Amino acid sequence: MSHLPSAFADYESRVRSSFEQQGIMKAIGATLTSVTPGEVRIDLPFGQAVTQQHGYFHGGIVTTIVDSACGYAAYSLMPAHSEVLTVEYKVNFLAPAKGEKIVGIGKVIRAGRSITVCSGEARAFQDGKGRLVAIMQATMMMIKTAS
Amino acid sequence: MSHLPSAFADYESRVRSSFEQQGIMKAIGATLTSVTPGEVRIDLPFGQAVTQQHGYFHGGIVTTIVDSACGYAAYSLMPAHSEVLTVEYKVNFLAPAKGEKIVGIGKVIRAGRSITVCSGEARAFQDGKGRLVAIMQATMMMIKTAS
Amino acid sequence: MSHLPSAFADYESRVRSSFEQQGIMKAIGATLTSVTPGEVRIDLPFGQAVTQQHGYFHGGIVTTIVDSACGYAAYSLMPAHSEVLTVEYKVNFLAPAKGEKIVGIGKVIRAGRSITVCSGEARAFQDGKGRLVAIMQATMMMIKTAS
Amino acid sequence: MSHLPSAFADYESRVRSSFEQQGIMKAIGATLTSVTPGEVRIDLPFGQAVTQQHGYFHGGIVTTIVDSACGYAAYSLMPAHSEVLTVEYKVNFLAPAKGEKIVGIGKVIRAGRSITVCSGEARAFQDGKGRLVAIMQATMMMIKTAS
Repeated sequence: MSHLPSAFADYESRVRSSFEQQGIMKAIGATLTSVTPGEVRIDLPFGQAVTQQHGYFHGGIVTTIVDSACGYAAYSLMPAHSEVLTVEYKVNFLAPAKGEKIVGIGKVIRAGRSITVCSGEARAFQDGKGRLVAIMQATMMMIKTAS
Repeated sequence: MSHLPSAFADYESRVRSSFEQQGIMKAIGATLTSVTPGEVRIDLPFGQAVTQQHGYFHGGIVTTIVDSACGYAAYSLMPAHSEVLTVEYKVNFLAPAKGEKIVGIGKVIRAGRSITVCSGEARAFQDGKGRLVAIMQATMMMIKTAS
Repeated sequence: MSHLPSAFADYESRVRSSFEQQGIMKAIGATLTSVTPGEVRIDLPFGQAVTQQHGYFHGGIVTTIVDSACGYAAYSLMPAHSEVLTVEYKVNFLAPAKGEKIVGIGKVIRAGRSITVCSGEARAFQDGKGRLVAIMQATMMMIKTAS
Repeated sequence: MSHLPSAFADYESRVRSSFEQQGIMKAIGATLTSVTPGEVRIDLPFGQAVTQQHGYFHGGIVTTIVDSACGYAAYSLMPAHSEVLTVEYKVNFLAPAKGEKIVGIGKVIRAGRSITVCSGEARAFQDGKGRLVAIMQATMMMIKTAS
């Protein structure tokens, strides 16, 4: 990822502050476990409130975690007075999302002036062992806000 | 959708029974509001537990609703002793998902022997007026279960 | 598509002029058969030069036709002194692209200030009868050029 | 890619033989430059016949190359008496596909019984230097043929 621009000084506090405002993350118990320039990790413990019909993590919830991880990875490289918006994404599900927790990781592949392309993945951990359960390709956009 | 196969007799009860097992739907208060052969609708009322950082519906939650709507639309055309699996999907977000509720609709575009392709959409309702906020293109797969 | 902005006066000549500069369209014999505000159609006759291993139209060529149809549908609603760029797309293949010709259609779903979301499809015609063979969901971007 | 199954003995000859039947590859001068189990590379030299309106490689042609690279990467791990089919893919375009040649690479991420998920990329080479211009996430399917 040598093409990434330098991160702005307060990137981590801006990401953490925005994350704390996402009601869904609090509701399902997701935590922001790592924020570095261009890469963000979010962990989600298992619970009945996030399941699909077989008792595994619902694919939409796995998507929610990786969406936020990709969005904040993009946001970590954006300047002050900006917001990040998800334009679109695509997710492939590779295996049942079964286990004690999901770890979602979002990485910036290319940060352009307004459009940032990210790659994301989710791993399900069972008995301490992780398994790749989903991959995402996402497009994020920077929106300038009033300074 | 003239290419759709006939639905099997108990399609609605199978869909409703599976939906009731999705813990996430109960947790966020989503309801299955319509099940017809090849088309399913799910409604989700607004609440703090489903928000992103600006207080609107989180895109991942909108995706969750449309994912389940598409999955059950596909499942409504599958025979007894089968399960439906989401292979992958892609979502474009068209406008902020802002309002009192989200209505997600999934429709079967083509039902093959094992692969079913669906088209989904989400509308956000505010003051009784709906606005298209997301569109999905999804691939579902039938898994035969022991009879 | 009631949300579409009015088309600019010279939209058709701008689309046709750009299409004529696409070397690939000339090489494979594709023609621009319809240009209306927000919707464009491109036809491609069959030939050995566009086949995959079974002698049908290659999926990538079907994509090429629908990509250009979507791009020009978006471009038809953009002002003078602008260019259109394909940000990304996703295509599902529904049936073998077999027949005498492919008809690709691109439609604008939502035209924003910089981002336009399109929906595309391809039909394969055999003995005068068309069959839906692919559907696309695409994101296009407007780039302002020097006036 | 530790989950990849062993390749079958004649994988390379099966891939090369199928590739030679793709009329589009011959028409645009694409060559199969590497075939290993789970990874395939295809090179495409520049020419007027593959351009879009600005004289660069058309995005649909870049897609065609990466589609075939991903399809053959999946096929390289499939048994005799099988065919590979592209179910769907999604492509993000990161930079103008400008240069003397395009190198498309397809890799298997997960090979299941019927569904194989691949990741692809295209690099444009100019003055001997490559630049990432597109990334793909693709779903392939194995079809058994009569033995």
